[in-house]
Amino acid sequence: MAEEAAVRAQGEVVRRLKQDKADPDEIAKEVAKLLEMKAQLGADEGKHKFVLKTPKGTRDYSPKQMAIRERVFNAIITCFKRHGAEVIDTPVFELKETLTGKYGEDSKLIYDLKDQGGELLSLRYDLTVPFARYLAMNKIANIKRYHIAKVYRRDNPAMTRGRYREFYQCVNDRRILDGMFAVCGVPDSKFRTICSSVDKLDKMPWEEVRSEMVGEKGLSPEAADRIGEYVQLHGGLDLIERLLQDAKLSQNKLAKEGLGDMKLLFEYLTLFGITGKISFDLSLARGLDYYTGVIFEAVLLQQENDHVEEPVSVGSVAGGGRYDGLVGMFDPKGRKVPCVGVSIGIERIFSILEQRVEASEEKIRTTETQVLVASAQKKLLEERLKLISELWDAGIKAEVLYKKNPKLLNQLQYCEDTGIPLVAIVGEQELKDGVVKLRVVATREEVNVRRENLVEEIRMRTRRP
Amino acid sequence: MAEEAAVRAQGEVVRRLKQDKADPDEIAKEVAKLLEMKAQLGADEGKHKFVLKTPKGTRDYSPKQMAIRERVFNAIITCFKRHGAEVIDTPVFELKETLTGKYGEDSKLIYDLKDQGGELLSLRYDLTVPFARYLAMNKIANIKRYHIAKVYRRDNPAMTRGRYREFYQCVNDRRILDGMFAVCGVPDSKFRTICSSVDKLDKMPWEEVRSEMVGEKGLSPEAADRIGEYVQLHGGLDLIERLLQDAKLSQNKLAKEGLGDMKLLFEYLTLFGITGKISFDLSLARGLDYYTGVIFEAVLLQQENDHVEEPVSVGSVAGGGRYDGLVGMFDPKGRKVPCVGVSIGIERIFSILEQRVEASEEKIRTTETQVLVASAQKKLLEERLKLISELWDAGIKAEVLYKKNPKLLNQLQYCEDTGIPLVAIVGEQELKDGVVKLRVVATREEVNVRRENLVEEIRMRTRRP
Repeated sequence: MAEEAAVRAQGEVVRRLKQDKADPDEIAKEVAKLLEMKAQLGADEGKHKFVLKTPKGTRDYSPKQMAIRERVFNAIITCFKRHGAEVIDTPVFELKETLTGKYGEDSKLIYDLKDQGGELLSLRYDLTVPFARYLAMNKIANIKRYHIAKVYRRDNPAMTRGRYREFYQCVNDRRILDGMFAVCGVPDSKFRTICSSVDKLDKMPWEEVRSEMVGEKGLSPEAADRIGEYVQLHGGLDLIERLLQDAKLSQNKLAKEGLGDMKLLFEYLTLFGITGKISFDLSLARGLDYYTGVIFEAVLLQQENDHVEEPVSVGSVAGGGRYDGLVGMFDPKGRKVPCVGVSIGIERIFSILEQRVEASEEKIRTTETQVLVASAQKKLLEERLKLISELWDAGIKAEVLYKKNPKLLNQLQYCEDTGIPLVAIVGEQELKDGVVKLRVVATREEVNVRRENLVEEIRMRTRRP
Repeated sequence: MAEEAAVRAQGEVVRRLKQDKADPDEIAKEVAKLLEMKAQLGADEGKHKFVLKTPKGTRDYSPKQMAIRERVFNAIITCFKRHGAEVIDTPVFELKETLTGKYGEDSKLIYDLKDQGGELLSLRYDLTVPFARYLAMNKIANIKRYHIAKVYRRDNPAMTRGRYREFYQCVNDRRILDGMFAVCGVPDSKFRTICSSVDKLDKMPWEEVRSEMVGEKGLSPEAADRIGEYVQLHGGLDLIERLLQDAKLSQNKLAKEGLGDMKLLFEYLTLFGITGKISFDLSLARGLDYYTGVIFEAVLLQQENDHVEEPVSVGSVAGGGRYDGLVGMFDPKGRKVPCVGVSIGIERIFSILEQRVEASEEKIRTTETQVLVASAQKKLLEERLKLISELWDAGIKAEVLYKKNPKLLNQLQYCEDTGIPLVAIVGEQELKDGVVKLRVVATREEVNVRRENLVEEIRMRTRRP
């Protein structure tokens, strides 16, 4: 039961591949067109007619984007570590059969590898199924782990842009949904497909979802209308109490179990002081088949709609739930290992943060270099290399321009451009005096430091507050 | 020329997939056999007849292995950062045509994705070609970057085990090799294939390599013997000077260029004080086609052979070189961008470190948890959750056992097992007095701390030296 369920809690951190708005496809197509025209004009021998791009749905990360991505990762990893989670890793591909029969309708989105005479392989579609395989293979029944890795889906995700006011979490339970379906008159065989329809309520109005249920999926209009009444409900402990009194739901074993655990969950949330951020929402369904109990999602609310009474949801940034049957599908004896986990859509969070950084015009450093070793006169390349070698040996992060005789101005400009805070300048006089001129880029302050004290001086001046 | 070449230096860090010695294939095959037998006996319905394993040549990482891997990564990243490198990332697969024609004979080892109606894709084979594609696509001519990611090769790498005495670096230059081939009488058309043969000298004796050159590759015995004389040479500045005087080599334009740059490189190595670790070795050839200038490898020498005069090389852990033509293959105008880079074989280094840790019986922590919140009496679950919530909010890394009424002994044992240094114990009396009993696991010392001072006390006691 739920009070002991979290023992096998997992944290799944998934980096989904999303397409950037500045579509590299489009740019690449333009380039390809121009190249073709050029080739036809005979100006080129057609050597480079290929399209220069990354595969559809994927992107590169520049140093600046990586610096922002690191921030997101660090925030997430810090949180997992604060709660005592361990980290594991699994291969990027799995045996095809490992993924078979785990994702329902989504299975068509799996990337398969070509049959090159060995095993049949597929790229991992999520981190949950490989994790379940790992647990079964290593007979682990008790672990709290996180896993940060890329997953691969053959879809064309729309890029969400916009400014978001707040995160919002909603929870539900598959057993409450299934109980609700039962008391509304949905035949058992239609539970999962009707559940898929309910899952669309965050993107479609009820009327469309209803007509899908009745039209495409052959549900009776009466059953659909009864579902319609339930799925508009959301609230907290009060709603749970009300449903526990509901004449029909309270008679259903599954719904009663689900509501009992939901009540316990809200008692814990009260202890943690976070009930205000969480809504028990009967329309939450989650797409994947493998969930068996509590399910949840973190949703972003749009900032532009602050004046509107009910802020508009612009999409989920995290989601998960309890899946007690998945490990058993891999275990030779079918032994069950109850699991609960959450996936965080790093890409969406990253793109929001990226936008914010752009808007703020904050200067992002892409290196951590503490000092540039520079020279004021010519012919001091060897002296610069000697000095930087000393600094590197002492663990100082240092750079030097790869020119024989760089101008001092260019060396200072490089520091301005890259955010290097200090310059260590060697010149004839300094060498004679056994000192190095240390310049603070921001203030232009210059001070002569004895060479043997330089490392300590740099450390002191670049210590983080 | 070499004095400015490093401007476009790249650092490539490649994690090669290696097969563990405790072959999961073998284990999985055994499991599969047993399952089949069971199914035939009718004891099982055959539901779980699939093989429970990771794909051939891949492996999972347990939390303990991840902790060791993190150490390796941190050492490498620290080094790249010390030298002012930026980080980038690229997708795990590329358009198939991006990889075509870049790897010579090794191309057959590329993993292709199945044609599922979209683009034709391949998993990246190294990080160099995607990097060159990135430079051409973004018109970057000047970057120093590192990249840590997995690459995929359809080979069956042997796992190197053993204890290693030291790292050893050797360098050569493709132009010196090509000049040497020319003066030895190798026809131009055979340069690359003879170069491949020379590359095998670290695994085969000269006699076998010679017979491959003469027998399979149709080289004249005289040319082979002349090569045989050169490739046994290794040394430092003295050897470079000697070859610059070599009657034949000094007449060859390529060899002369290569030797001139090699001399300059050794002058820099002298400034950095590391000539003792580096050998100019005429037998070093590197497998890949795309190198155009200096090439280098870091090699492990076996510890067991300390009594032998010349320690045996047991394999390369890093390698790279200069590739000035690769970016031009992607640029529509064929513009060249000189590059030099190194790949570090993390897996091999990791497996050495893993062995060392095992041998030393060092206890590896897989979490960073500072404190376990525990209770001495029953019915204190709520109080434990309240306290841990306070600690989490203050940024303390804390855990709690997910049991309603855990025994104190079990809670202390958990700390012993996982290396958690502190236990914060709540009990009826402590709650009444507004204190928490803080226990130091190692010394069993216990002290009552006022609740409002607990966070500071934990911080102080777990500060790293």
